[in-house]
Amino acid sequence: MCKAEHIKTFLRGIGAIAVSEAKLRFTSDGLKVSAVDPANVAMIHATIDRTAMDVYSAPEEELVVGIDVARLYEMAKGFKDKEPVELIVEDSRIKLKNKNLTYSVALIDPNAIRKEPKLPEMDLPMKVVLGIDSFKQAVQAANKISDHVILRCDGDKFYIEAKGYVDAIKTIFDDTELIEFVKAEAKTMFSIEYLLEFCKAGNKLDIIDIRLGTDYPGFFSFRDSAVELLYVLAPRIENV
Amino acid sequence: MCKAEHIKTFLRGIGAIAVSEAKLRFTSDGLKVSAVDPANVAMIHATIDRTAMDVYSAPEEELVVGIDVARLYEMAKGFKDKEPVELIVEDSRIKLKNKNLTYSVALIDPNAIRKEPKLPEMDLPMKVVLGIDSFKQAVQAANKISDHVILRCDGDKFYIEAKGYVDAIKTIFDDTELIEFVKAEAKTMFSIEYLLEFCKAGNKLDIIDIRLGTDYPGFFSFRDSAVELLYVLAPRIENV
Amino acid sequence: MCKAEHIKTFLRGIGAIAVSEAKLRFTSDGLKVSAVDPANVAMIHATIDRTAMDVYSAPEEELVVGIDVARLYEMAKGFKDKEPVELIVEDSRIKLKNKNLTYSVALIDPNAIRKEPKLPEMDLPMKVVLGIDSFKQAVQAANKISDHVILRCDGDKFYIEAKGYVDAIKTIFDDTELIEFVKAEAKTMFSIEYLLEFCKAGNKLDIIDIRLGTDYPGFFSFRDSAVELLYVLAPRIENV
Repeated sequence: MCKAEHIKTFLRGIGAIAVSEAKLRFTSDGLKVSAVDPANVAMIHATIDRTAMDVYSAPEEELVVGIDVARLYEMAKGFKDKEPVELIVEDSRIKLKNKNLTYSVALIDPNAIRKEPKLPEMDLPMKVVLGIDSFKQAVQAANKISDHVILRCDGDKFYIEAKGYVDAIKTIFDDTELIEFVKAEAKTMFSIEYLLEFCKAGNKLDIIDIRLGTDYPGFFSFRDSAVELLYVLAPRIENV
Repeated sequence: MCKAEHIKTFLRGIGAIAVSEAKLRFTSDGLKVSAVDPANVAMIHATIDRTAMDVYSAPEEELVVGIDVARLYEMAKGFKDKEPVELIVEDSRIKLKNKNLTYSVALIDPNAIRKEPKLPEMDLPMKVVLGIDSFKQAVQAANKISDHVILRCDGDKFYIEAKGYVDAIKTIFDDTELIEFVKAEAKTMFSIEYLLEFCKAGNKLDIIDIRLGTDYPGFFSFRDSAVELLYVLAPRIENV
Repeated sequence: MCKAEHIKTFLRGIGAIAVSEAKLRFTSDGLKVSAVDPANVAMIHATIDRTAMDVYSAPEEELVVGIDVARLYEMAKGFKDKEPVELIVEDSRIKLKNKNLTYSVALIDPNAIRKEPKLPEMDLPMKVVLGIDSFKQAVQAANKISDHVILRCDGDKFYIEAKGYVDAIKTIFDDTELIEFVKAEAKTMFSIEYLLEFCKAGNKLDIIDIRLGTDYPGFFSFRDSAVELLYVLAPRIENV
């Protein structure tokens, strides 16, 4: 049992990369979903932390069930953000339930669902932590003139920039504006469309933790104390 | 002369069942419209109570005029909710008027308008009174998985429920949540589309009073101290 | 350097009459644009007053550059209303810049841009000054039944009125509701579409100053202490 907003953010985060069916794991750490988007450009590792749940009776062995992400999200939206909601698995159905309202839907056979991805191990030297709003603003600005954006660190400052045919846009962050900043040279181009989807999904969370190399996939972890949406996004190749 | 919001709610309520032209009666009790929707599935009996009007000079004999409901509603929206508005009939025109703004439109010949329905007399044993928001929430939840909803009482609690192909939804109300509850076995299926239209129209009113039998038309009275929108809605036949 | 909202209102105001490219003048009085709409029905003379700018280093000679109005407006929207923004011309580019974000776009050759109109000299005897909201409300009311509106003064009151096939609408203003009122007989019909566009663009400004004759172009000056959007709108010929 946890607040409806956590369940909504969790499901919304998975849906952000167009994943329609997913394996939901009840682990000793909390609820977990790992999934890859249909285009194989992004993956998500989403978690609702066990500590965010008032009551959490996971079975001895880890339980894995198949869920229809969009359908369950649609139902979760019927509950108010601060309302406590129970998420129950019984009789091959998953239920969302508060005092008055019960919603139930048939589970999907987990074997019919695409294999869960592993988190890639990579050496990403640069790290910044900032407010989600600041990141979103910079990406939205870039979106006005291009459909891809360059995230870059010259070892001193962190840049989010884009170039159009006649115009250019650049947002600069230095130590004073970043919650955390591990400086290292890094530069990667990403699709703005994906980044904006992540931002929309992570909207109600607090911070974003970005890890970056050069032309490597980037790690974008949107989180607060209850929910983490960790996206790994493939780079786009720059035409030089 | 009464507040613009009463006139707006009254006209909006009639328009909710797609009635385009109606007979408006100036009676000793207030303003009244009775009309049937074009599909003959729902009827409305709408009233602005005389006590809600600061000045009300009804003629000796009851006055009946024909109005274009949508056109008059469109104009009423031009006034702010709390503004006092005069509704005047003169020179074959109906006028809405405040200090600055005057709107006038030609009346329609009442003989050209469809006959007004009578309120059916029926024995509907079950009655609940609840806040419009609670009712609306339950119907909206049902709307996510179906286009019809079952209202049901087992003699103890009141249920609003729907079933889809793989999912199901149920909202339960007991005495503690209902303003009034006359318990009796009852169960009827209705079109969600109509119920949601009623809820939208009655949005600014306070409570809804529902009377129900089994597979009988239901009475849905949305009201506050000034306006009543009483809808009678035909049942839908359940495929058993 | 001035507040982003001034730049936004200024550019939005020019865009309201579908001007896509304009000559921007850095004069000793402030920033100025004069332009005619493609249909030759309306012109605008827009100003950001020098006193609204914290720093303003105009060159000795008046500087004239060509700008892409819509593109620059789109970028200006990326800044928050109260944020101070620098507008810089250098290296054949125009830049919008705050502490973090820099946007730059290539200038357009001013010789490729349509000639700036002169403000017509006309004897318009009637003048009213009123709140933009009051004016907008009256025009919106008229819009419900017609696509043109008559502005009229009988030497005593000021009327905004429209007639449809079966309905009519009239808003009356007298001395008590007008900030300033120079009474004189005047009557002119205008396109509602243009007036509503002006109102939308001038939305954040304070007052509108209207000057009117009979079947002459009208002067509509939307302004506050920082920005003026002065529109001149051609009359529509009434079918009498």
